[in-house]
Amino acid sequence: MKVGMIGLGAMGEGMAINLAEAGFLAGVYNRTFSKAEKFRKEFGVDVFNSPSELAASVDVVLICVSADEDVLEIVTRISGSIKPGSVVVDMSTVSSKTAEQAASLLAKKQVDFLDAPVSGGVEGAKNGTLAMMVGGNQQALEKIKPVLEAISSRIMYMGATGSGQGTKAVNQIMAAGINQAVTEALAFAEAQSLPLEKVIEVISGGAASNWFLEHRGQTMTQGTFAPGFKLALHHKDLKICQTMAKQNDSAIPLAEQTIENYAQLMKKGFGDEDISALYRLKHP
Amino acid sequence: MKVGMIGLGAMGEGMAINLAEAGFLAGVYNRTFSKAEKFRKEFGVDVFNSPSELAASVDVVLICVSADEDVLEIVTRISGSIKPGSVVVDMSTVSSKTAEQAASLLAKKQVDFLDAPVSGGVEGAKNGTLAMMVGGNQQALEKIKPVLEAISSRIMYMGATGSGQGTKAVNQIMAAGINQAVTEALAFAEAQSLPLEKVIEVISGGAASNWFLEHRGQTMTQGTFAPGFKLALHHKDLKICQTMAKQNDSAIPLAEQTIENYAQLMKKGFGDEDISALYRLKHP
Repeated sequence: MKVGMIGLGAMGEGMAINLAEAGFLAGVYNRTFSKAEKFRKEFGVDVFNSPSELAASVDVVLICVSADEDVLEIVTRISGSIKPGSVVVDMSTVSSKTAEQAASLLAKKQVDFLDAPVSGGVEGAKNGTLAMMVGGNQQALEKIKPVLEAISSRIMYMGATGSGQGTKAVNQIMAAGINQAVTEALAFAEAQSLPLEKVIEVISGGAASNWFLEHRGQTMTQGTFAPGFKLALHHKDLKICQTMAKQNDSAIPLAEQTIENYAQLMKKGFGDEDISALYRLKHP
Repeated sequence: MKVGMIGLGAMGEGMAINLAEAGFLAGVYNRTFSKAEKFRKEFGVDVFNSPSELAASVDVVLICVSADEDVLEIVTRISGSIKPGSVVVDMSTVSSKTAEQAASLLAKKQVDFLDAPVSGGVEGAKNGTLAMMVGGNQQALEKIKPVLEAISSRIMYMGATGSGQGTKAVNQIMAAGINQAVTEALAFAEAQSLPLEKVIEVISGGAASNWFLEHRGQTMTQGTFAPGFKLALHHKDLKICQTMAKQNDSAIPLAEQTIENYAQLMKKGFGDEDISALYRLKHP
């Protein structure tokens, strides 16, 4: 199975390296050409000048970009050249609706589309330990599973097209709430003048333990916020969740609060920092 | 080192069994006598009729009860009979102020007092994998560490008397926020009609993963709320946190919201359920 990867950002790059090392990666496309060149040099894979050229010469197209419009643009561009029987997997975090539109576009070309967003941060992308939530045709998933196993240590089939993105929305809402929980508690610890390094270590062993505390606790209390997961991207994701919540009559007050807090931080120029920069507001 | 245990509730019982199996437990005291009798039968340890009798015949007194007034009453009762050079360890979750009062009472008898609250749930108590945050005299802690290692897999010295409880307050605030985050996100998942079992499993592999989701996610979405950690007890802890937050000028909005939600649930008769019963309000 020849695999092509579109999008070599913070997440995409780690995944592409794992795909190359597992022997799947045949070619890459990236808007910024220099990033793609790196893969030609290191792994000897093809670098394509356009998504459509890439799609024409592989069996599986993986997409990892940022926004709904990017996914739809790429799918439109590849739909002219892609071979029937190919599978397109979108690992970007976008709306369920975008997934449905992309799937319907590609179905006309006898191409399966899977929405397969991931969670686990840049660490997970680098180490191949991402969690992946997949919507779409289950047989298509089974067919290309060996490819996805090079990226993810937990692949879960969620149901029809869009249910991967629906699950990712749950994940992003939970991540927002946990960010609120961890920053609130650590600011309270700091106000008590407790030794924060030890606080984080001991709490990480108990019933309040969580990935975010273990991976971002020390850095946030030291005032460093290198991404990780960019705050502006989480903001974008949560806006999608907000729309979905309105549609299904859910109350998501912590996510709403987080959207406001992030907007405030973005206005101050912190949009490219990690989401743990929320701590700036909790302990000014 | 002969160890006596006062308080055989949900947490205390698990700890006492681990102490007995490690060969440390010499005797127990419990308000409800039948629970103590079980230990005589199973482990051949002494059952005492009062805390003061227990204190007179051991080197280390461990306390695991629920409320500030219980801790102070027990410390007062044992202070008459306890041998100089003994160590008293309180694993209850109470205020830093109570820890200071207890320490000062016992200091007059040449007895060291450690505030050593734990986290990790009934599972952690049963399996000996609790996280323990300790305040008080560090030398006293070193002296009795082998005893505590039968209970806890992560013992952290936090500083002066009261800092164990201060750290536990951070833990309880974080746990409240995580409860809010997880219940909000899972209610949103349910509103989307996603397969909840799979949602919980896949999210547990990513950047939103947390102990609470892994241990309470499935049961809460199935509508069962067996404790675990009783909601009324977490409410009590959070009221302590609220007082501390006022003293150190911290804002703890998620914890405040949780206090309100728990009060509402307690009014409806759910106080003895696990804290995950918060899900009742999120997905009525």
